[in-house]
Amino acid sequence: MEHIKGGVCAPKGFAAAGIACGIRRKGKRDLALIVSQTKAACAGVYTQNLVKGAPVIVTQKNIADGYARAIIANSGNANTCNANGIEIAEGMCRLVESYLGIDANDVAVASTGVIGQTLSLDPIIDGMPQLLSELGDNSSDAAEAIMTTDTVKKETAVSFEIGNKTVKMGAIAKGSGMIHPNMATMLAFVTTDAAISPPLLQKALKAATGESFNMLSIDRDTSTNDTLLILANGLAGNPEITSEGEDFDEFLAALRAVCTQLTREMAKDGEGATKLLECRVSGAKTKEDAKAIAKAVICSPLVKTAMFGSDANWGRVLCAIGYAGAETDVNKVAVKFISGAGEISVCENGAGIEFSEEVAKTVLSADEIVIDVSLGDGAECATAYGCDLTYDYVKINGDYRT
Amino acid sequence: MEHIKGGVCAPKGFAAAGIACGIRRKGKRDLALIVSQTKAACAGVYTQNLVKGAPVIVTQKNIADGYARAIIANSGNANTCNANGIEIAEGMCRLVESYLGIDANDVAVASTGVIGQTLSLDPIIDGMPQLLSELGDNSSDAAEAIMTTDTVKKETAVSFEIGNKTVKMGAIAKGSGMIHPNMATMLAFVTTDAAISPPLLQKALKAATGESFNMLSIDRDTSTNDTLLILANGLAGNPEITSEGEDFDEFLAALRAVCTQLTREMAKDGEGATKLLECRVSGAKTKEDAKAIAKAVICSPLVKTAMFGSDANWGRVLCAIGYAGAETDVNKVAVKFISGAGEISVCENGAGIEFSEEVAKTVLSADEIVIDVSLGDGAECATAYGCDLTYDYVKINGDYRT
Repeated sequence: MEHIKGGVCAPKGFAAAGIACGIRRKGKRDLALIVSQTKAACAGVYTQNLVKGAPVIVTQKNIADGYARAIIANSGNANTCNANGIEIAEGMCRLVESYLGIDANDVAVASTGVIGQTLSLDPIIDGMPQLLSELGDNSSDAAEAIMTTDTVKKETAVSFEIGNKTVKMGAIAKGSGMIHPNMATMLAFVTTDAAISPPLLQKALKAATGESFNMLSIDRDTSTNDTLLILANGLAGNPEITSEGEDFDEFLAALRAVCTQLTREMAKDGEGATKLLECRVSGAKTKEDAKAIAKAVICSPLVKTAMFGSDANWGRVLCAIGYAGAETDVNKVAVKFISGAGEISVCENGAGIEFSEEVAKTVLSADEIVIDVSLGDGAECATAYGCDLTYDYVKINGDYRT
Repeated sequence: MEHIKGGVCAPKGFAAAGIACGIRRKGKRDLALIVSQTKAACAGVYTQNLVKGAPVIVTQKNIADGYARAIIANSGNANTCNANGIEIAEGMCRLVESYLGIDANDVAVASTGVIGQTLSLDPIIDGMPQLLSELGDNSSDAAEAIMTTDTVKKETAVSFEIGNKTVKMGAIAKGSGMIHPNMATMLAFVTTDAAISPPLLQKALKAATGESFNMLSIDRDTSTNDTLLILANGLAGNPEITSEGEDFDEFLAALRAVCTQLTREMAKDGEGATKLLECRVSGAKTKEDAKAIAKAVICSPLVKTAMFGSDANWGRVLCAIGYAGAETDVNKVAVKFISGAGEISVCENGAGIEFSEEVAKTVLSADEIVIDVSLGDGAECATAYGCDLTYDYVKINGDYRT
């Protein structure tokens, strides 16, 4: 597998565009379109929030048959908790139909931004001609057009082999607040020219999500609009993957790599974040325990603020392990902090050990920190991703709407 | 029931002291003692964290028979995750025995502060003579001596009648970070001269906690040392409460009032808080649903930051309702913001309604805000308490140890 350029346009037969149609202020890009040359197998995972954005409901309906050809998405307004949200979301799909001749039922739709304000179709209608005219090798523009409080666009692509055919996979995504695991995820769109049947595509997507996006938490708030979609148009010419086996494993490995990279990028760009945190738990009795503990540590506001302050306050890590709801013997726990600047052990057998505060400060001053938790209580492991909690998180969210 | 002065010393037969023995820096009070003239019925609720502070373990053992006479507590060090924590906690109890002749098994002990640093008994040994010499009507000193990042001491007392006898109840407590509901609670010590049997005392304490401390969240982090204790020495002379009935109800009402007031004070003094938030949920199908929703709203970092910014971002309230894990029809939800400055409806039938942003800003600029959620889906209600999330929370916790 190798990393390549091109984002969602890297695989054969995909075009994208992203423009500013006026939903967001200051001329920021806010409308994205991804189109496959041919009908593609499609799978999705979505928010588990009871309050579901209208676009989530419409997308679930439109891709229920396992196929789609286009994704239209806007930022600046979540089109959620409005009286006419469904109508607007369906209207967005119909616009794609009328301009591109793609059946509205083959269009997925996604929105992100403020909840509870009516989304007007007008700027989108007005923007369609420009959006269509820019449809091409413009993955980056599309990545930009789905950003909200993100500070950098998130885009990746890989190339790999299935059955002697070169297959490509690309993706764009956006974070960066209201993100919490154990739900579907935030907005992420993956394209691939692999040939794979809808049921297997769904299976791969779910498996990849469980170890990547679902292990990410920025602030424990679960959005109403989280959507991860994948389109697989088959133009790579590999024999269609219709059952598990070697080809499926190759495909899943690529999808995992793409999802994990986007997950790390989202964590690093968490609202106000200055540091990417990774909590690696090993030695758990069960996979569920390992995941629960990794998530509890990565979610703890007290751990997050300590990491912001480069403070080796490992007691907070132990505290989070203790309330994770997992079964483990806390007297066996060992904790290490690891970064590019070195590593330092701070706790063994559930109790503090002597360590150099100076070295700890150096290790924790890096911008990517691993909190390594060894439970010594079994053989299962898990990794969760998050970021530190900073002044800027408060600033960004204290007055988001106005 | 009327509010009176005196804190934990208001009830007959209780004395208290609080001094600076040198555990905390800058000469801050850090050692507290509460003593009952006679052996008292005793009940407690504790942290549900797997990692339990050594004092919690020792206290549970010492009051297992339902009786105690004294509480010794320190701030500045949690005496948790240390090799010799139990030894130190037992040593604190033995110091009370040697100076006051109270059996060490009748002494409860509590510690709060940094986790994972060894607590030396030396400053406590050195401080005992002064602590004893100041034992008297000094509830406020004791309240101060258990503070950590609290900015104000928390102390209350009430007087009420049971069977024509005047009964008094007093309390001190400390917050203000690492606090989350569904666990026991933070440090709070209640005294009363009511006569009540240990089993009924435990029953009342559990009931009062469920609607007060357990509905409080500052930051969703559950401490390792949370402890709420009550001592009832019977000196008021009422017929001992040994079963449920009118007398028990009177007692429970007073205990609820005391616990709720301390809960509100803790919420208001949450780390970095500028505003007390109260989420009142009505119309839920079950009590559990009402509690889950109230807690989800009060815990949401996005709701908390919006309240800090006086931003009527009610979509975040709906979002939290949606992921609370409760069963409710989100299309029936109504949301109002209420404060001393007025009230404003912002959402009906799960969708936004027209409202004046100006009025909303005024309502939300108050320092006590009620988020009123009407589910229209049943008859149960619940209230949760919390605070806004501010720059100062990050500041306080970014470098707590050093």
